[in-house]
Amino acid sequence: MTEHFDFNLQETWPFESRIRQSPIAVETSNIIQDDTLGVISPVYSGVAWNVVDTGMSIQASISGAALINHRLFEAQQVHFHAPAEHTIDGVQHAGELHIVHRRRVGSFAVMAIFFEVGPKNDEFEKLLTNIEQENRFSFDLTALLPDDLNYYHYLGSLTTPPLSENVEWYILPKTMTLSEAQLARFHDIYPRNNRNLQPDNDRIIVTPGK
Amino acid sequence: MTEHFDFNLQETWPFESRIRQSPIAVETSNIIQDDTLGVISPVYSGVAWNVVDTGMSIQASISGAALINHRLFEAQQVHFHAPAEHTIDGVQHAGELHIVHRRRVGSFAVMAIFFEVGPKNDEFEKLLTNIEQENRFSFDLTALLPDDLNYYHYLGSLTTPPLSENVEWYILPKTMTLSEAQLARFHDIYPRNNRNLQPDNDRIIVTPGK
Repeated sequence: MTEHFDFNLQETWPFESRIRQSPIAVETSNIIQDDTLGVISPVYSGVAWNVVDTGMSIQASISGAALINHRLFEAQQVHFHAPAEHTIDGVQHAGELHIVHRRRVGSFAVMAIFFEVGPKNDEFEKLLTNIEQENRFSFDLTALLPDDLNYYHYLGSLTTPPLSENVEWYILPKTMTLSEAQLARFHDIYPRNNRNLQPDNDRIIVTPGK
Repeated sequence: MTEHFDFNLQETWPFESRIRQSPIAVETSNIIQDDTLGVISPVYSGVAWNVVDTGMSIQASISGAALINHRLFEAQQVHFHAPAEHTIDGVQHAGELHIVHRRRVGSFAVMAIFFEVGPKNDEFEKLLTNIEQENRFSFDLTALLPDDLNYYHYLGSLTTPPLSENVEWYILPKTMTLSEAQLARFHDIYPRNNRNLQPDNDRIIVTPGK
C-alpha cells in the first residue's frame, strides 16, 4: 500500500530551491540543439537614463522590448560584470554585459554578452562617463550586441541578491570588445563584481544552432 | 558613496525564495488582460499508461505535446486533486486536474482544469479503474478539457514536494464535471489531497481574454 503524504502536516513538507543558481560553467560539448527555440529580436528605444552604481554594478535604465524565444519581453536595465560570470569551456572573458528583460507575470530573461580587451567601445564609454546621470541620453544598446544573436539557453538565477531563481539565461557566444583603459576604469569602481560559479546540478543547456 | 556588495563574502548574500508558491486564491477582478499571450493548443497522444497512486495523487503518464503561450511543451503526466487547490473568487471547486508539461531546459507549464459534481466523466473513470495499470490504454485527454481554453496565467510552484518554483500556471476558468460516485471513489483513496492556499505576494495574474 502506498504511503500517502500527510496533507494535514503540510508545514513539514520538504522544499527544494537553490539548485538553479547562476552563473555556471558552460561546456559547449554538452549543449543540445533544440529546433523549437525561437530567435532573439530586440527593438530597444535608443535612449538610456539613470546610470547608477547599485553597489553590485554600474547599471542603466533602458526601455523597449525584445522578442526572445517566441515571447515579447520588456527591456528593463543593463549592467556590467568584470571579469565575466559565466565561463565557456573554462574560458573567463574580461567582462559580461547583462541586458535584463521582464514579462508582466514576473519572469526574467537576461541576455549575456561577453567582452574581451580590444578596440574601444563607444557605447560602453557612455555608461562610464554618464555615472550618476539621471537624464535621458542617446544610447544605442544594439551597438553592444554582436551581429550574431545565436545563444546558449538555460534556466538559472539572478547573480546578485536576491538571487531569485526565475531567470531564463540567453548567453551569446560571439564576443564584443572594450579597451584596456575602459576595463581599468570599470575596475577602479569594482576590483571585481563577478559571482562565483555555481553547481550546474545537471541542468540542460540548449541552443537554436545556426 | 555607494556601499558595494562584498564579492569576497558571497556566502553571506541573502537568497530570496518560497515567495512564489502555489496554489493561490485567484481574484478575477485583479486579472490583467495581456494581448501578447499565446493560445493553448494541445496535441496529446490518445494513450496513457502507468496509472499510480504516488502518495500525493492518482497520476497517469501521458505523451504528446502542447503549444502553450507560444512555446512547445512536452506532455508528461496528469493527476487529480480533490478538493480543488486554486480558488476563484473564493470558490473552491470539487476537484482540480493538473496536466503537467515540460520543456527540455526544465521549465514546467501546468494546465489546471476544475471539476464540479455533475454528469459522470468517462475519461476520468479510466484513471479510477486503471490504478496500478502499467500498460498503455486508450485515453482521450482532450475529453477532460473544456471547449474553451481561455486561461488565467501566473508564476508559481509545484503544489507537492519538492514544491519547486519554476512553474508556469495556466488555470482554465471553464469547468468540467465528474459524478458524485466518482468523487467519492477518489476520496476513498484521498480524503483530501489539496495543498493549502499560499500567499500571493502581489503576483500578477494575466489572461489573453476572449
